[in-house]
Amino acid sequence: MTLVPVALGPRNHPVLLEAVTRGGANAAALADAHALVWAGNDPAAFPGDVPETIRWVQLPSAGVEEWFAAGVIQRHPEIVWTSAAGAYAATVAEHAFAMLLAGVRGLPEHLAATTWRQRELFGLVGTLRGSRVGIVGAGGIGRALIPMLASVGATTVAVNRSGRPVDGADEAVPADRVDEVFSTVDHVVIAAPATEETRHLVGREQLSRLGSKSWVINVARGSLVDTEALVEVLRDRRIGGAGLDVTDPEPLPDGHPLWGLPNAIVTPHDSNLPALRLPAYAAHVAENVRRFVAGEDLMARIDPVAGY
Amino acid sequence: MTLVPVALGPRNHPVLLEAVTRGGANAAALADAHALVWAGNDPAAFPGDVPETIRWVQLPSAGVEEWFAAGVIQRHPEIVWTSAAGAYAATVAEHAFAMLLAGVRGLPEHLAATTWRQRELFGLVGTLRGSRVGIVGAGGIGRALIPMLASVGATTVAVNRSGRPVDGADEAVPADRVDEVFSTVDHVVIAAPATEETRHLVGREQLSRLGSKSWVINVARGSLVDTEALVEVLRDRRIGGAGLDVTDPEPLPDGHPLWGLPNAIVTPHDSNLPALRLPAYAAHVAENVRRFVAGEDLMARIDPVAGY
Repeated sequence: MTLVPVALGPRNHPVLLEAVTRGGANAAALADAHALVWAGNDPAAFPGDVPETIRWVQLPSAGVEEWFAAGVIQRHPEIVWTSAAGAYAATVAEHAFAMLLAGVRGLPEHLAATTWRQRELFGLVGTLRGSRVGIVGAGGIGRALIPMLASVGATTVAVNRSGRPVDGADEAVPADRVDEVFSTVDHVVIAAPATEETRHLVGREQLSRLGSKSWVINVARGSLVDTEALVEVLRDRRIGGAGLDVTDPEPLPDGHPLWGLPNAIVTPHDSNLPALRLPAYAAHVAENVRRFVAGEDLMARIDPVAGY
Repeated sequence: MTLVPVALGPRNHPVLLEAVTRGGANAAALADAHALVWAGNDPAAFPGDVPETIRWVQLPSAGVEEWFAAGVIQRHPEIVWTSAAGAYAATVAEHAFAMLLAGVRGLPEHLAATTWRQRELFGLVGTLRGSRVGIVGAGGIGRALIPMLASVGATTVAVNRSGRPVDGADEAVPADRVDEVFSTVDHVVIAAPATEETRHLVGREQLSRLGSKSWVINVARGSLVDTEALVEVLRDRRIGGAGLDVTDPEPLPDGHPLWGLPNAIVTPHDSNLPALRLPAYAAHVAENVRRFVAGEDLMARIDPVAGY
């Protein structure tokens, strides 16, 4: 029996080589391959042309807007493209949860304190118990967040395209009603893909619907939040705070107002631990190779029209 | 039918009055009562003598070592004493979890950063996923923590007196083997009562068994941790960090080394939110009154010999 030939690029990383083998395929040169598993992060380094034998390309990032911007995916509409969406979901969800919980319990102010200010700090300690948290984007990260929030007694409202029920979420709302969600929740976590439609999904109007103790967490892409509007409400303390693993602009330049705000937690897009990234990608690759070999539907198939 | 008479002290707080009624008893003067529900925090303010008709006293705090120190409980060994252990467990567990998660994800260092230091901060971001967390004390707080830790993929080792299995914990270890636990876990949460036996349960020896990324969380009482030994390992970065809602001495004096350490999160004993404390105590009172009226076992009965 001849195994399905799968190429690796830009180089043969041993961990991914092992994943391809584990998935039941054979590592092969690009010219002979039916599929290409890519491990590079720079779309410009992707081959300008891929052989006609290639039927599937696996990309290493969860968000693929840069690959669309570079025209890589559109160049080969005949190929099935898959992202790594979902592969890194658990660690990113944990990061979002950590920022939300830290914010709600007032840890930023506590960390700044150098004296036992119980009376002043008491009022800043909140709880997620009994709170209602909106999760915008019910992909891998959003779905991984639901049991975490449930474990501390929060209820969840998931926003997805169709509004169809989401496992474990107490409520699901379609994307075209996302603005309403900001009026009914205590906190919001943004975990939706970056597209033209989701640009500035969190703007002045949406922020004005939140309460004075509300936290906004963004672990998706900076473009989903209107930074200027966010800085304004944080400065005026019209919301509780913001936890941002992604920013716009990114990297956040030195001297940017977000660096100086006591109610902003900024982490430099490091929620997806490098130490865990390769093994997580390898597990994703192994499963998708297995599906490819078996002729099953692949995970995280990119929709060239939707743009993610 | 005559309702069981229950007295409130030091005053008739309406929320507790309602709880006593909800529990099926009648509010009465101390001289006529069979039980006393106390809401004051100062043992010195407790009546020097209580009428012989009193068969049960409910105290408002979860830890009762101050009531023992003042001799209040020992003065009336014929009375059944109950604490509020468990009543505040959920919010304290959430606080412990918030500090642990914030510490492990490197949020203190991130909050101190004022520039996009991705390369430096990457190494500080850890994950609870796949980690092993020791919970010393499997009372209300410890048990409330277990599902929170499970939700982010951590396994738990519960330490209790007997080592009998604890619901949801992956392992249970008897208190006399607590030192061994420090050698096998990634992180430790202290949630055990303050007694002579638990004093400095976390000392130089135990801390030396932890790893360089381990966090120690204390939401019990300051006396369980040897502060001097802790400051030493934090200074030398021999452990990851410490999250302390309780300290020794407490309040932590100005200028204490713990205030200046970048890997210490100190919250001034405010994990038990004042806003939630009274309703939580009222719910506990209502249930214990119901049990008292029905002749059932009371929750959180104090053991005058064990001292908690």
